[in-house]
Amino acid sequence: MTEQLSIERNWTVSSQSKAMAAGDVSAMELAEVALQQAAEKSVLNAVVSLDPEIVRRQAAESDERRASGQTLSEIDGICIAVKDNFWTKDYPTTACSNATPRVPEKTDAFVIAKLRSAGAIIFAKTNMHEWAYGATNATSNIGPSRNPHNIEYTTGGSSGGSAAMVAAGIVPAALGSDTGGSVRIPAGACGIYGFKPSYGRASRHGVLPLSWSLDAPGLMATTLHDLEMLLPFFLGADQADRTTALSRPYTPSRTTDNLRLINLVGDGLERSDEVDIVHSRALRQVQGAAEIRTSGIPGVASYFAAWEAILHAEASSYHLEQMTEDPSGYSPVTRSHLEAGKMLLATELLKAQQLRTEFCLALEKLWQDADALVLPTLPVTAPKIGEDWQEFGNLRVTSQDSMTWFCWLANLAGLPCISIPCGISSTGMPIGMMVMAKAGEDEKLIDIVHKMDFSINP
Amino acid sequence: MTEQLSIERNWTVSSQSKAMAAGDVSAMELAEVALQQAAEKSVLNAVVSLDPEIVRRQAAESDERRASGQTLSEIDGICIAVKDNFWTKDYPTTACSNATPRVPEKTDAFVIAKLRSAGAIIFAKTNMHEWAYGATNATSNIGPSRNPHNIEYTTGGSSGGSAAMVAAGIVPAALGSDTGGSVRIPAGACGIYGFKPSYGRASRHGVLPLSWSLDAPGLMATTLHDLEMLLPFFLGADQADRTTALSRPYTPSRTTDNLRLINLVGDGLERSDEVDIVHSRALRQVQGAAEIRTSGIPGVASYFAAWEAILHAEASSYHLEQMTEDPSGYSPVTRSHLEAGKMLLATELLKAQQLRTEFCLALEKLWQDADALVLPTLPVTAPKIGEDWQEFGNLRVTSQDSMTWFCWLANLAGLPCISIPCGISSTGMPIGMMVMAKAGEDEKLIDIVHKMDFSINP
Repeated sequence: MTEQLSIERNWTVSSQSKAMAAGDVSAMELAEVALQQAAEKSVLNAVVSLDPEIVRRQAAESDERRASGQTLSEIDGICIAVKDNFWTKDYPTTACSNATPRVPEKTDAFVIAKLRSAGAIIFAKTNMHEWAYGATNATSNIGPSRNPHNIEYTTGGSSGGSAAMVAAGIVPAALGSDTGGSVRIPAGACGIYGFKPSYGRASRHGVLPLSWSLDAPGLMATTLHDLEMLLPFFLGADQADRTTALSRPYTPSRTTDNLRLINLVGDGLERSDEVDIVHSRALRQVQGAAEIRTSGIPGVASYFAAWEAILHAEASSYHLEQMTEDPSGYSPVTRSHLEAGKMLLATELLKAQQLRTEFCLALEKLWQDADALVLPTLPVTAPKIGEDWQEFGNLRVTSQDSMTWFCWLANLAGLPCISIPCGISSTGMPIGMMVMAKAGEDEKLIDIVHKMDFSINP
Repeated sequence: MTEQLSIERNWTVSSQSKAMAAGDVSAMELAEVALQQAAEKSVLNAVVSLDPEIVRRQAAESDERRASGQTLSEIDGICIAVKDNFWTKDYPTTACSNATPRVPEKTDAFVIAKLRSAGAIIFAKTNMHEWAYGATNATSNIGPSRNPHNIEYTTGGSSGGSAAMVAAGIVPAALGSDTGGSVRIPAGACGIYGFKPSYGRASRHGVLPLSWSLDAPGLMATTLHDLEMLLPFFLGADQADRTTALSRPYTPSRTTDNLRLINLVGDGLERSDEVDIVHSRALRQVQGAAEIRTSGIPGVASYFAAWEAILHAEASSYHLEQMTEDPSGYSPVTRSHLEAGKMLLATELLKAQQLRTEFCLALEKLWQDADALVLPTLPVTAPKIGEDWQEFGNLRVTSQDSMTWFCWLANLAGLPCISIPCGISSTGMPIGMMVMAKAGEDEKLIDIVHKMDFSINP
């Protein structure tokens, strides 16, 4: 397979919204273009479910609302692709596994219903790493998704199909879920923006869990402004997810002065020379807008182990019953993760939970002198499909570990985090930068990235 | 052993405080009486460490402060006994185990330092169930403590020595710790007041943990008013115990109108006929002051199992290293608990943690129509020493389980709870009633008990 795609991204959420408002284009016309693009780019293997009639029905409804002056929001008529672990009332939910998820009929996840209530078109369900339990998208019952920048390369995962569809210009925005980077990894690998909210700011209700204390639904788009347009219809309290009880609606803020960044480096935070060079160059472009210090995270290897232990224990706990009844539905690799998690001892999990608390306290010290922490999104560019090992900084680690290398930090501490495109490698693959703010400060994070982004992508 | 003690309780915190303020008695004179009482009542086996010179030095300092007009508080000069799992700078801390606790030298627990800063005299360290890991006080390296009401009967535990000293009139107040009732059980069994604060209102720093997510330090006294006098020097934030970060100081309130009580009954909440009769009679006395409904707790048996799983897992986690290095220091029964906890799986602990959340949500429904929940403190009166089984309500359960039968509810949900004396059995043993309020509402609980208490003990 050597053919390559031309990537056209003429349309953003913002430009589509404006064009519809001006009467230059209808939701139906945009939907037809997206349907055509999806068909033309089927080589990406990004789509699990896509029914043109379901898309056209939603587009027609949007156009009818607009014709009668009852447009629901700025995003009315915008096509959004959705990872196949969100409940959607008109598409099945497979988690890309033959161990079929048990999903209530004709029910939307909370955030899907919220986006629909703003007029968004739920366009398709997208390819993902089986049950979100992996960061490469290599394991999926429909095969791996492919990177639009080079279809011989992985998208990263687990929300690989969503990232591929946005990066290829099929739809301007998509949803993923993120337990150790599953939104930001493919966003970074595919050269788009990926946003993971603070734990507890966006409802997990109706998103199949991987590890409930680490999971967050997230957004992908091709500009920061597009992410901002979607946030009011994504963040907020939901009685069905008690961890969002105190979540406030998205309330934009542009108040961060004298931006102070900490560039995280050192033991356990190694990256390839090329990624380091691109990351450092991008940070130099921010220097005019921010004060930048460097810091390490002592003991980061044990915090990484804590993240893994919590992930495995919670995933095994969630799948316990289904694993007993239908073990053969899972792929061998997913099943082996789940079996391993079942052997973890309670005392080991408690040690991991204590390390998690310790990690949050260690971060609190950093926040005293910083508004945001920055890291590359990935220590390497996207691996080739089938490539199981990565080498960087005198290390040799699995492709799986290389994908989550930095991303888990935000999940273990519940931080809001955005991956922004900041360069291209010598082989033409995207390189991303990750920016994290204090837990709960999603609006401040957007403000910070806005100031940085302007320097990196003017 | 058939001799019995005469119980004299002429002194309360309040009466001692007033007498010292009036110049009718000195702290030294009160301390000498307490020392003499402790010696006379040594049959109770309540004391682990007591050094008359250490007591006299503190009493002399209190009298000097008073003489120079520098009395620190209303409780300056009051003798307080302390369970032997609180760090105290001038007494060792043994946890009544030959597996010696590792305790920093010459350091007070946060609440001990707070009480000392108010002038309280730390009188003695008291007998307890080994490492607080049991509710009978039967397992202790100095042997069981004895109930002042009948020395052939247990005090209950784990804070048995503290309750015995207060109930016998040796000191007017004492400290215990409470993971599944360890303050309220001996308070109920010995006929005094026992208070467990909300989780996160009083610092656990310097109190040897049994199960850190369930533990709370607590107070014992012979009147509600005495508890109130101590609370300002007991509740409050401590940077060394992050769970108290949001704790406010004790701020008395007398604002509960139209008191609504729920009397908890039904499956899993069985009690002996005699306890039920005394409890019901006491509640009838409250009827004028409150509206009383009854309710069950569906699934209470599984919540009890969740409490046990969390307790065992956290206790084993805390003792893991010491158990490996020095297993023979623990008594066989404590060691077997700790070994059992090591075998619990992470998925089992997660199930227990989920049930804990479910229990808190079930309680939230009850709070919609109630200011407080009431139960007997124990389903039976104190067991005889050596009696391993209890029978009540067609059940036969271990003495251990009978002691924690109702008390764990407040720990699993982090509720503030007070055990108040409400009657005497046909055999002359005390019967207590337990009152619980919503988590964080310790002041409201005091207010409620004040209104109830006046009816029961006018």
